[in-house]
Amino acid sequence: MSVSIGLLGAGRIGQIHARAVPGIAEARIVAVSEPDDAAAQAVVDLTGARRDTVDGIMADTAINAVMICTPTDLHAKQIEMAARAGKAIFCEKPIDLDIDRVRACLEVVAETEARLQVGFNRRFDREFMELRAQVEVGAVGEIELIQITSRDHAPPPIEFVKRSGGLFRDMMIHDLDMARFLMGEEFTEVFAVGSVLIDPEIGVVGDVDTATATLKTANGRVAVITTNRRASYGHDQRAEVHGSKGMAAIGNRRATMVSVADTEGYRTEPLLGSFMDRYAEAYRRELATFVAALESGHQLSPSGEDGLRALELADAALRSMHTGMLVHLGA
Amino acid sequence: MSVSIGLLGAGRIGQIHARAVPGIAEARIVAVSEPDDAAAQAVVDLTGARRDTVDGIMADTAINAVMICTPTDLHAKQIEMAARAGKAIFCEKPIDLDIDRVRACLEVVAETEARLQVGFNRRFDREFMELRAQVEVGAVGEIELIQITSRDHAPPPIEFVKRSGGLFRDMMIHDLDMARFLMGEEFTEVFAVGSVLIDPEIGVVGDVDTATATLKTANGRVAVITTNRRASYGHDQRAEVHGSKGMAAIGNRRATMVSVADTEGYRTEPLLGSFMDRYAEAYRRELATFVAALESGHQLSPSGEDGLRALELADAALRSMHTGMLVHLGA
Amino acid sequence: MSVSIGLLGAGRIGQIHARAVPGIAEARIVAVSEPDDAAAQAVVDLTGARRDTVDGIMADTAINAVMICTPTDLHAKQIEMAARAGKAIFCEKPIDLDIDRVRACLEVVAETEARLQVGFNRRFDREFMELRAQVEVGAVGEIELIQITSRDHAPPPIEFVKRSGGLFRDMMIHDLDMARFLMGEEFTEVFAVGSVLIDPEIGVVGDVDTATATLKTANGRVAVITTNRRASYGHDQRAEVHGSKGMAAIGNRRATMVSVADTEGYRTEPLLGSFMDRYAEAYRRELATFVAALESGHQLSPSGEDGLRALELADAALRSMHTGMLVHLGA
Amino acid sequence: MSVSIGLLGAGRIGQIHARAVPGIAEARIVAVSEPDDAAAQAVVDLTGARRDTVDGIMADTAINAVMICTPTDLHAKQIEMAARAGKAIFCEKPIDLDIDRVRACLEVVAETEARLQVGFNRRFDREFMELRAQVEVGAVGEIELIQITSRDHAPPPIEFVKRSGGLFRDMMIHDLDMARFLMGEEFTEVFAVGSVLIDPEIGVVGDVDTATATLKTANGRVAVITTNRRASYGHDQRAEVHGSKGMAAIGNRRATMVSVADTEGYRTEPLLGSFMDRYAEAYRRELATFVAALESGHQLSPSGEDGLRALELADAALRSMHTGMLVHLGA
Repeated sequence: MSVSIGLLGAGRIGQIHARAVPGIAEARIVAVSEPDDAAAQAVVDLTGARRDTVDGIMADTAINAVMICTPTDLHAKQIEMAARAGKAIFCEKPIDLDIDRVRACLEVVAETEARLQVGFNRRFDREFMELRAQVEVGAVGEIELIQITSRDHAPPPIEFVKRSGGLFRDMMIHDLDMARFLMGEEFTEVFAVGSVLIDPEIGVVGDVDTATATLKTANGRVAVITTNRRASYGHDQRAEVHGSKGMAAIGNRRATMVSVADTEGYRTEPLLGSFMDRYAEAYRRELATFVAALESGHQLSPSGEDGLRALELADAALRSMHTGMLVHLGA
Repeated sequence: MSVSIGLLGAGRIGQIHARAVPGIAEARIVAVSEPDDAAAQAVVDLTGARRDTVDGIMADTAINAVMICTPTDLHAKQIEMAARAGKAIFCEKPIDLDIDRVRACLEVVAETEARLQVGFNRRFDREFMELRAQVEVGAVGEIELIQITSRDHAPPPIEFVKRSGGLFRDMMIHDLDMARFLMGEEFTEVFAVGSVLIDPEIGVVGDVDTATATLKTANGRVAVITTNRRASYGHDQRAEVHGSKGMAAIGNRRATMVSVADTEGYRTEPLLGSFMDRYAEAYRRELATFVAALESGHQLSPSGEDGLRALELADAALRSMHTGMLVHLGA
Repeated sequence: MSVSIGLLGAGRIGQIHARAVPGIAEARIVAVSEPDDAAAQAVVDLTGARRDTVDGIMADTAINAVMICTPTDLHAKQIEMAARAGKAIFCEKPIDLDIDRVRACLEVVAETEARLQVGFNRRFDREFMELRAQVEVGAVGEIELIQITSRDHAPPPIEFVKRSGGLFRDMMIHDLDMARFLMGEEFTEVFAVGSVLIDPEIGVVGDVDTATATLKTANGRVAVITTNRRASYGHDQRAEVHGSKGMAAIGNRRATMVSVADTEGYRTEPLLGSFMDRYAEAYRRELATFVAALESGHQLSPSGEDGLRALELADAALRSMHTGMLVHLGA
Repeated sequence: MSVSIGLLGAGRIGQIHARAVPGIAEARIVAVSEPDDAAAQAVVDLTGARRDTVDGIMADTAINAVMICTPTDLHAKQIEMAARAGKAIFCEKPIDLDIDRVRACLEVVAETEARLQVGFNRRFDREFMELRAQVEVGAVGEIELIQITSRDHAPPPIEFVKRSGGLFRDMMIHDLDMARFLMGEEFTEVFAVGSVLIDPEIGVVGDVDTATATLKTANGRVAVITTNRRASYGHDQRAEVHGSKGMAAIGNRRATMVSVADTEGYRTEPLLGSFMDRYAEAYRRELATFVAALESGHQLSPSGEDGLRALELADAALRSMHTGMLVHLGA
């Protein structure tokens, strides 16, 4: 089987994913649905795809997979449409900002036995992959403590913040998923605090820009996440896993390793400034893995369930921030 | 004025401090009070001090300063004795495990206008000093987030754990003081979780061995501390301060910078294994600073108030861990 | 103009270059000349090129550029053919192992006003590019000393060594070119020593496997190069430029930044094992730059003259090794 | 036996050594010979030593060791005097700038069976000690290549340069000794080049300020040393040993590990600015080792022979620089 893809949505993230496809021998984008002419044309030029409607794509039986990159409030409905149309689905996170809507959507996915991969791109970053690989081969022994630092270079536009679902559901959700990915055990307790320190406007629209969450598993293992919307020195993404035998950690990559020493000391360049540069390779590997799994019949991962769990943690963190209390999950 | 010191207590920490004194030109230990003969003799051999009783030392008007290195439950009483005897006081942390006892003791200190320095040795470590210096010159701008990682190489004997006051009051108190030292603004909210992951015996005696605390100031600035009792690779002490302009951070020092590369990769040696090695220089500078302040008339720091504040934070963290709720301080 | 390329030679290095072309919008390989069927077919499959002879390619006026990746002893002749056929030329280093043959070839290039770029791929590595950029903006002031360390992961097969022209002309020539690239001033004196320490067979065929060269410019600036054929920990490529104001240096990149700490210390993975992995991006940028210069009319660089100069230095180093004397160039 | 030391010369280096002695339990300086009153008094104040003449010290049978820190041209004579007086000798490098004078002096040492340690302080630096220890336990396998980078922070006063014996005998001699210390095999061939790039005045007095030497053993192992008189970023001292199994390397230590990241990138402080700071601990260990060996009867190291060999290499390097030829030693 080769993978014929219909692309739903060709905005910023849709373009990122579209660019990954020509490098994958077994896949091509054959149709794109996107209201903006320029954005749609960019995909057409890049891939030779035809422009089409969402319905047209769903109805085309030659299309066996869709990539959903539309605005968040369309994700769940389009997942359901694609599931019912028998298409494999790659959907950008989150499935929906409302957890009940996510659950309903995943029921359709389950009923239709649709194959669904959710877009937690960091799982495909070679640093995080190798970090987890070290954990899995036992380099740190039994995990005791995970620390994740996640700082964006600069806050997004306030219009984006308004519709984003907030720091926990938009940004920290990546870190929450990463904590799950590394821990290999579900978290049952969540505590969080948040502050508005970077931009008062973010507070005005009801969000925070700086937050930390503490998570605990039933076995008492702990994860601590600190997230904020600005780091002058670039997109700062670090993680460490500490356990009974030792620690595995990842630092940041820079564009180059050049250092300059003079009377002021030693200096190296700032980090890459955007998540798109930082995770360029991860985005490519994410889609290549999606296609390879479709080819091989392997299970898609991260799954809709992973998307749900991360959102549950984000919601719990938000609730904890508002109540000042540890939130217990599950049961 | 030259400083004639009476040393109260010559156990492990007393020996550490005693060894610092011969290197300070303006100070000498003239008397030592210690029940254990071997420990006392070690100080006598090192310094030429006479053995004496606590009362004898307090009564000796030629002694103008005491170093209190006795078991914790004697600290407050001996501070009061020394304060009333008009002696300057260096007291190992904590002043007492009971916050009310600390407050009562500090009232005596205030009434007698005694000069008191509390033993938060990390404030005298050149790494932490330089980190704070960078913060003070504005290298990070307005502080937003402090992260402190503090891991002991191996847990102390269970007998020590029992009497220690617990992880928060014994070990994390250093990190809480450091968070205050770096933040330069009081914390008003504390949340903490703790787990027993390293040694079940620690749980049996009612303590935890792995903990994390989140602290917030009235302005919304945040500090996150993770502390545990074991790191196979050595005594791990790191901190970073993140602010509006950037980040300042300290890593760990090793005994040497030697790296070896072979087919397995690159490796460097583990960290120093004990806080005594890690902070050897800090212990010396701590006492040298105490003596210098006595000579110059400068204010002693960290003060009894600093000791009290750190204990309040430790108590709040403990209470939060037990209740699962954010604890509000002050007012 | 778009660039239609004829590929001469599709062995290991030819494949590397062929793979870079599909990523360059303005260029495509339209014909390939290669006696080995499998190798030729790989290029055909990748690019859609036709198989052809060298003569056929030279005669095809629709082909406006050739990439010469044939065995070294064919380079000079094919450069001359292409020059006379009015084609732009990318030729793998070296132009020839015999300096007089190189000079004769470059005369033809000059007469025909052919455009020629020689394959010193490291000039297109982002680390070395940024190192030079730092030098050019004056970060180190006036250059005083350049140090280059260049170690291959493992020696090539002895059959390769025999035909390679020897360590200086095959391997160190890259470092000699890099020294010129960084110094920006010609070297006038060369001294070198060499040893057989890795594999006695290398000595049997008259070559060395470990060598160091010292070069000096007329102004007394110095470059020191150490090169050898084996580093257990990977392909080790470092350089530093020291000057009146300070130093700029590059280290090695690893596949990931993951570190693991345990009782044995801290470790990171070995370096990338092959120059093909290490310089994968540089090979792509090298050809993209070639194509871009053809499009823009900018001068091709590194030029045939650069190829000649590097070979002169390699020959001088070889002569110095044999005589134990400083060799003076030029005049 | 306890070690009663007579100090000959209390200038800059004499003061450094004098300060190390009070920290050594088994040793004390009992007499000091120094024409400058202030310098002598500093030692008297520090150690309680008496002032005396060289002859007085030599005649005092209660003095069983001398530390020779006088100007270089007095070293050989004072070594001979002390040897004949039956005293153990610590002598600052070099024994003399004239190799024949060194040989004559060492004959007296041999005849009198005097115990002599020469002041190559870097052998007592923990970085270099651990580097050698790694080599000795086989971490790099058979040594193939040693690279030493040695840069002073700033050139010494021109008056010092004039009397110093020149860059090779004054400064690079430390690196030559280190190369011998690490290689564990004698060098038989030396080549060197030198330039005046930092200060023309240094050229006027017949010296160079930037130099590199290449050394080879009879087995073909190679050492490359680059040395210069100025590095804006501090006292730069690095070494790496490469062998059949891998590489061991040392970098530089800074006063602190603090890094600051902002829009300009990451920066750390410059290196320590002077050899006195960089090697403060090494100077203390050097003398402690001298005293311990006197106590235990162990052989003193580095020996007079080590001093001779390093000077032979320095002289050979100087000769090579002047002739442009590889200089063969020994036979």
